Amino acid sequence: MSRAAFDDLRQRLAEIQDLWKTAALLSWDQQVMMPSGGAAIRAEQLATVGRIAHTKFISADIGRLLEDLRGFGEHHDYDSFEASLIRVATRDWEKASKVPPDLRAEMSRSAALANPVWVAARRDNDFASFLPVLRKNLDLRKRYIDCFEVGDEPYDIVLDDYERGMKTAEVRRIFDYVKEHQSPLVKEVAEQTQVEKREKTFDIEAQKIFELEVVREFGFSSDSWRLDPTVHPFASGTGVTDIRITTRYFTDGLEGLFGTMHEFGHGLYEHQVDPSLERSPLARGTSLGLHESQSRMWENMVGRSLPFWRRFFPRAQELFGDALAGHDADSWYREVNAVEPSLIRVEADEATYNLHIILRFELEQAMLADEFPLEQLPEEWNRRMWEYLGIEVPNDTTGVLQDVHWSSGSIGYFPTYALGNLISAQIWERITAELPDLPSAIEAGDFAPLRDWLRENLHRHGRKFTPTETLERVVGTSQIDPEPYVRYLREKLAGIYGIAA
Amino acid sequence: MSRAAFDDLRQRLAEIQDLWKTAALLSWDQQVMMPSGGAAIRAEQLATVGRIAHTKFISADIGRLLEDLRGFGEHHDYDSFEASLIRVATRDWEKASKVPPDLRAEMSRSAALANPVWVAARRDNDFASFLPVLRKNLDLRKRYIDCFEVGDEPYDIVLDDYERGMKTAEVRRIFDYVKEHQSPLVKEVAEQTQVEKREKTFDIEAQKIFELEVVREFGFSSDSWRLDPTVHPFASGTGVTDIRITTRYFTDGLEGLFGTMHEFGHGLYEHQVDPSLERSPLARGTSLGLHESQSRMWENMVGRSLPFWRRFFPRAQELFGDALAGHDADSWYREVNAVEPSLIRVEADEATYNLHIILRFELEQAMLADEFPLEQLPEEWNRRMWEYLGIEVPNDTTGVLQDVHWSSGSIGYFPTYALGNLISAQIWERITAELPDLPSAIEAGDFAPLRDWLRENLHRHGRKFTPTETLERVVGTSQIDPEPYVRYLREKLAGIYGIAA
Repeated sequence: MSRAAFDDLRQRLAEIQDLWKTAALLSWDQQVMMPSGGAAIRAEQLATVGRIAHTKFISADIGRLLEDLRGFGEHHDYDSFEASLIRVATRDWEKASKVPPDLRAEMSRSAALANPVWVAARRDNDFASFLPVLRKNLDLRKRYIDCFEVGDEPYDIVLDDYERGMKTAEVRRIFDYVKEHQSPLVKEVAEQTQVEKREKTFDIEAQKIFELEVVREFGFSSDSWRLDPTVHPFASGTGVTDIRITTRYFTDGLEGLFGTMHEFGHGLYEHQVDPSLERSPLARGTSLGLHESQSRMWENMVGRSLPFWRRFFPRAQELFGDALAGHDADSWYREVNAVEPSLIRVEADEATYNLHIILRFELEQAMLADEFPLEQLPEEWNRRMWEYLGIEVPNDTTGVLQDVHWSSGSIGYFPTYALGNLISAQIWERITAELPDLPSAIEAGDFAPLRDWLRENLHRHGRKFTPTETLERVVGTSQIDPEPYVRYLREKLAGIYGIAA
Repeated sequence: MSRAAFDDLRQRLAEIQDLWKTAALLSWDQQVMMPSGGAAIRAEQLATVGRIAHTKFISADIGRLLEDLRGFGEHHDYDSFEASLIRVATRDWEKASKVPPDLRAEMSRSAALANPVWVAARRDNDFASFLPVLRKNLDLRKRYIDCFEVGDEPYDIVLDDYERGMKTAEVRRIFDYVKEHQSPLVKEVAEQTQVEKREKTFDIEAQKIFELEVVREFGFSSDSWRLDPTVHPFASGTGVTDIRITTRYFTDGLEGLFGTMHEFGHGLYEHQVDPSLERSPLARGTSLGLHESQSRMWENMVGRSLPFWRRFFPRAQELFGDALAGHDADSWYREVNAVEPSLIRVEADEATYNLHIILRFELEQAMLADEFPLEQLPEEWNRRMWEYLGIEVPNDTTGVLQDVHWSSGSIGYFPTYALGNLISAQIWERITAELPDLPSAIEAGDFAPLRDWLRENLHRHGRKFTPTETLERVVGTSQIDPEPYVRYLREKLAGIYGIAA
């Protein structure tokens, strides 16, 4: 009887998962393949598929099945498919069904309408024109928060959407440590002799060849992956063996390559989820923070490491010729790790990136709490940029208007970027302890040990466990600990800048 | 009150149309972009989206709305959006709701399972291994027919799925005329001096450049179209300004180019549907026959015409060099119109193509009527190939196993290919009468008059009218008339082979 109910639930959730993956394809295609003329009708198709998936999920039928199956779930092992599916779906259902469909629709509509306003405001350096839609998004987000019982802080509700179970107070504690230790590090580096950079030009066709060679060694294969150019890089896909990453190219540097390695990290997490979880809500990474730990690990711990460049520098020199003249693997390693406080988050280096996030985390809480009139947001932004990064913001285009997130109402998302950085170092310490030969494997182009370790310890679980449960399985503690990241940074920068290790 | 009901209906149908267009994208992506690893889950996604669309459409709610809106529809002009939507949706609903979902699911499943069996059977020239799945598909198709009241002939039911309102007896009458007049024409040509062909090699990159230049002059533009390579060419898309055509390339000839022009014709029909019909079931071509008339017109009446090659031959010669050495526009025009009875339908020329179809039309009726044991199908096939085309079939791979259609249970589809050929000539006679300067416009690369004529007289109506109503609007008669096609052929071949005009 319960088995039949479970099969019923599983089938319903599979159908819903099919719809979400279909929506992912609609969105991937929109950004990568669609002729511009398709924009208006694609918005309708995305809205329709999303609405049907959501309506089916929050149905009373599923609520009843989950209720009936509570005992069935508890009689199975905690990490069994059955118990995990019921547990995760119950949690999702309880959160999703608290939000009236009308509010959800209004949030989507408002985000869609705000996007072009933000694009124009950023282009024209005109914060005032963005202000009304920002206010609208913020009001909707407050109404969204009001749908739930607020425990400690309202921000907990939105944070939980991206990093399940994480508390604002916990993030604050972590970020305070980061501010205390990472800010001085940036200042120490600034007092050293800087890495000299000269202007270069990297041929785009050569970049395409190079990045494919790199991700192929990482584990990309054309039977399960695609790599395409796009305006804003992202990772997507329709299943564990259909992973799609996107990238972009610049002629003045290899930021595109690092972006490709970043998206590979996201893609690999999805690719290595246990195939038996396919067509269930368990078939993806467990949180944005854990996901970002994977992208940052491949981008930074691997892609900005000395063993990596010892492996790939000769080939890069072949392909890019003049651009790398006068460099060797070691000097190039220093250049790609140069620390330089800058205005734009997405271009920030490993040492300054988290500080960009902390600024946003603080502003988001202040906005939700109406701590200052929204008109003052640019000043609040600029003040913190000076305080944390020692940078003067010349205009709002390169300041408060730089990110897309607030135009889509995505408040609570930013912290996961920094948490991902911190987690990546926790995991990396564990990996390098368990795989002492990893640096030489990387230098030999053998990425299988790293890939396998990640599959076995992290990826295969998908969403079976909460972020903290997952972290505990991977590194032995459920706490996000900022110390390993600061240690990692200090050690790396000691080698490059000669600061104290 | 009725207006509110109509808006409700319209909104429900819009949602269903979004789902069908989403399914079209899932399928386009599957054939053009998807890594092979996505196959299994893509089948689930397609099944889910199709099932939801179908279930929503045949719902009692929609049946009730259609019933309630009958009077509302009748109070609007016949060609108004309101009357047309209600009329067409009622007709679709009545047919769709007669088929039990289980039978529909079994037909889909059986088709999916039969496909790989057919692929292997064709590869191995092993009809016996295909026989059981063919029998299964045929049985299901008979059960499908049993869902309806059969009027004159069971074949009417399946024919109507592809060419609404068309009767088997009518097709037979038309095809008898074709057999009587087209078969002798082929024999007459066979007695003349043949067009001499020598082996050539066409560079594939040059083909890609050339076909894009051609379809751009036709009206392809990258803001509303895509063109991609695939194994089996087709036209698809997600809306009137997102049209996707696909093609393939051969090094030994320009079949790929003709295929591209063919798919352009399909694409243009969809592209020029009145945008006000978007997100409704009216937003597509009215039947497969009318659709094929458009693809064949651009492929043959335009692409295999002398004015076309006078326009494009110089550029072709630039691009393909040696392959066209010794040719001029006139001699090349003769070569691309050479008549040569051959084994394979998709490679057949304009004079023999319809005969391939007639053979299949006759066999399909015989199979549904159990006129011979299914084991004898190859013999029945081969006998007709000899009779109609004077060709001996060396094996089933190039005979009865060549087409995919029967493996997917698509019985009743084939006739629309030949009907499309015939309709294309009816329309072409009308166009050339109304646009006497068309040949010189084509020679000057000006395709706007043709495109505009087609939009105004045919394309914009979408599915508002039945195929016969549509035909009547375009050419002044609701009858498919085979005479213009035979006239067109005889005239063209008179110029090339010197037979009597």
